[in-house]
Amino acid sequence: MNRIATRSSVIFILSALPSKLATRRALSSYSSKMTTATKDPASLHNPYFYQKPGQKDIWSLINETAAAAQAESGKPIVNLGQGFFSYNPPDFAVNAVNEALTKPQFNQYAHARGNPNLITEVAKHYSKAFGRTVDPSEIQVTTGANEGMFSVFFGFLTPGDEAIVFQPFFDQYIPNIEMTGAKVKYVELKYPKKFDTETVTGDDWEVDWEGLENAITDKTKLIVINTPHNPIGKVYTEEELIRIGQLAIKHNLILVSDEVYENLYFTEKFPRPAALEKLPELAERTLTIGSAGKSFAATGWRVGFVQGPADLIKFVTAAHTRICFSTPAPLQQAVAQGFIEATKLDYFEKTRQVYVKKYELFTKVFDDLGFPYTVAQGGYFLLVNLSKLKVPKDYDFPPAIADRGTLDFKLAYWLIKEIGVVGIPPTEFLIPADRKGNGLEQCLRFAVCKDDSILEDAVARLRKLKDYI
Amino acid sequence: MNRIATRSSVIFILSALPSKLATRRALSSYSSKMTTATKDPASLHNPYFYQKPGQKDIWSLINETAAAAQAESGKPIVNLGQGFFSYNPPDFAVNAVNEALTKPQFNQYAHARGNPNLITEVAKHYSKAFGRTVDPSEIQVTTGANEGMFSVFFGFLTPGDEAIVFQPFFDQYIPNIEMTGAKVKYVELKYPKKFDTETVTGDDWEVDWEGLENAITDKTKLIVINTPHNPIGKVYTEEELIRIGQLAIKHNLILVSDEVYENLYFTEKFPRPAALEKLPELAERTLTIGSAGKSFAATGWRVGFVQGPADLIKFVTAAHTRICFSTPAPLQQAVAQGFIEATKLDYFEKTRQVYVKKYELFTKVFDDLGFPYTVAQGGYFLLVNLSKLKVPKDYDFPPAIADRGTLDFKLAYWLIKEIGVVGIPPTEFLIPADRKGNGLEQCLRFAVCKDDSILEDAVARLRKLKDYI
Repeated sequence: MNRIATRSSVIFILSALPSKLATRRALSSYSSKMTTATKDPASLHNPYFYQKPGQKDIWSLINETAAAAQAESGKPIVNLGQGFFSYNPPDFAVNAVNEALTKPQFNQYAHARGNPNLITEVAKHYSKAFGRTVDPSEIQVTTGANEGMFSVFFGFLTPGDEAIVFQPFFDQYIPNIEMTGAKVKYVELKYPKKFDTETVTGDDWEVDWEGLENAITDKTKLIVINTPHNPIGKVYTEEELIRIGQLAIKHNLILVSDEVYENLYFTEKFPRPAALEKLPELAERTLTIGSAGKSFAATGWRVGFVQGPADLIKFVTAAHTRICFSTPAPLQQAVAQGFIEATKLDYFEKTRQVYVKKYELFTKVFDDLGFPYTVAQGGYFLLVNLSKLKVPKDYDFPPAIADRGTLDFKLAYWLIKEIGVVGIPPTEFLIPADRKGNGLEQCLRFAVCKDDSILEDAVARLRKLKDYI
Repeated sequence: MNRIATRSSVIFILSALPSKLATRRALSSYSSKMTTATKDPASLHNPYFYQKPGQKDIWSLINETAAAAQAESGKPIVNLGQGFFSYNPPDFAVNAVNEALTKPQFNQYAHARGNPNLITEVAKHYSKAFGRTVDPSEIQVTTGANEGMFSVFFGFLTPGDEAIVFQPFFDQYIPNIEMTGAKVKYVELKYPKKFDTETVTGDDWEVDWEGLENAITDKTKLIVINTPHNPIGKVYTEEELIRIGQLAIKHNLILVSDEVYENLYFTEKFPRPAALEKLPELAERTLTIGSAGKSFAATGWRVGFVQGPADLIKFVTAAHTRICFSTPAPLQQAVAQGFIEATKLDYFEKTRQVYVKKYELFTKVFDDLGFPYTVAQGGYFLLVNLSKLKVPKDYDFPPAIADRGTLDFKLAYWLIKEIGVVGIPPTEFLIPADRKGNGLEQCLRFAVCKDDSILEDAVARLRKLKDYI
């Protein structure tokens, strides 16, 4: 971080994802207020959040590129970028909101712990999924899984503590940990070399076990995993969970398991750290994160939950109470009703079957053209390796794309402009120092949580890639 | 803070509202992980959130006392404690949610800045209220005003910084500031001595100007005010705002104005720091907080907003994006529609008239019995001085009440048990060191955001107080 102080302003130059050094300085410097006689209130900002003028986050950059391409060509672009659903939540869930809204209590503050009806249903859901009784005292409702993770981090981490995150990672983890003043230690899910030329599965993305053991220090408090994994689609195997769990037990760590895609797994079983037959004691130190948005095709509802031992959950409750106080009441009541209906209708199993077909529909074009991908074991993303693609060498990339310095941003831009399909450059899920030269540079991530007609349109367009192999 | 380490556990003894010392240690100690060979994952918690076993927050304590009294007596208790509405939001707002739910885009992630329709309507609302054009770039939508304040604090405060808060204060401010690592400096809104014996107004609660000037140091970044004020009901006068604003300008501070009750003022004008004719430059350093929940009788919807100069708002956006990512989409769209309908129907003005009548209905019993209160200039609370009340000396208070050590908790308990009306002990809005002996010890806060029939029931019960004067 370079600090350039002038008479009237202070400029912090920081990468989009702040470096560890910058973070530590920004969050722990005694005061960031300048002693010079500046009169600019903007100079008072938290330097952690500084962005260079014109710098865009990946979502804005890609979405704006797509919008511009659409305006220019006059043809709609097929957006498989961000992981939102193109279709509505099931009628039973929407109707449940309408019903909740008729009752005064569901329009006023819910309890900070969560609507008791929802807590009961989430406890039942986990009881069934884990194969053991989960008590309501083990559930905290949060304002989306994102705020759930943030509440977990704030409930346990203090400045100087460390949390271990596997990369590639869901991008929000990093600031959510660093905002507590704690430090992130990164461990690789190793890019499988054979993925350069052939289709692989989540099992081929292996944990760097030596790296994991080395990353644990006496300051480590949490290990964070994500299963099913975004963007890889990996479902951690039972063996992997046991090995991670044993380390957590040995070093007295908490395992935070982000399982927001729990209802979309395509493996025979979905192993969960909180329900391992061979390591049941891991449940005593596991916090599992769930998402109603992901489970009911309602990412905009912002209802999530955290499950774990009551003596850990109480600290999540304490943090959540301060961060959001309570979660939207009518939507909580609707999700409670949604779980009841989902069980009656076998909704989650049926949705899994629908998604198996969506993946079949979408992956065929890559099979036909010989582009390797990682078979998704869960979630709703597909990671495709486009290294065979021959983008013209003299192609004109705008500075916002070229300046990113990695191939995947160019691939994403070219695909939007020439093919009309939006994918996400996955190096954004790595720390800046590890982006260049990583196998992910040759990949794009596509979201399949879209109507079949949209996926069919995408496939038809992607067939044109044969002219660029 | 006493730290008692044993072989298997670590116990932090902390008051409900952590002391400044405890806070600083908890948030800035290099690591709170113990070096002893403990295997208890609960020992890893953030000590800031520790509560003594059995210790209850004020809301749980009062609500559970009321529930127990109700069960015991078999008669319903009239709850004028927490500030939620007993009635539903207006039909136009509820119908707007129903309509939004039919459209896929309002069930998926809204933009982190907020739904553009809502941003437009909030900008129009402030343009009208401030008497000048407020641009959409000056608006950030947040997941309730609470998360809006938290985003403001995280957008500007870093460890070692200071923020000034007037006490009595809304209790969430304190942890929301301290979680950033910054320190709170307290300045009095001085209890008016004559309130012991006569009814006063918000104007009688004066800022401790000397205290304010002394509280400002070179580490101060923010001054936080709340107008209309909870629990006093004070609307800051134009003169007071100018004087505070001049200090903010002189010392290059940001003024955070929590105006969640903005649509419930009963004074002729509602002066706002972002719209002072005599000090227009204060708007350049003012962040105004608003609440759809308070404005549309929907405290459970969790939709709030922050208004301020675009070059300050961008840091609020950055923090909010990490904390909650985005705010519930169907409720945002409904609030956008709600503002349009409210303007057509003159809803806010009509609601003000309704509340003038609610206060008339409720205050009459205190006038008749000679209990002084602070005439509410805004908001939906009434602060009543019950020092004349003769609670029997040998009354049996449970330890959870007696241990609080202040008279107002005993008053609240007695009123629930003997009269059947719930009020909130206002010393909870003071730091622990200032509670004992404060004039507020003799007061209770009542919420009037209830159906008239509920207020009438409360009045009928409160008439029985004449036997205890």
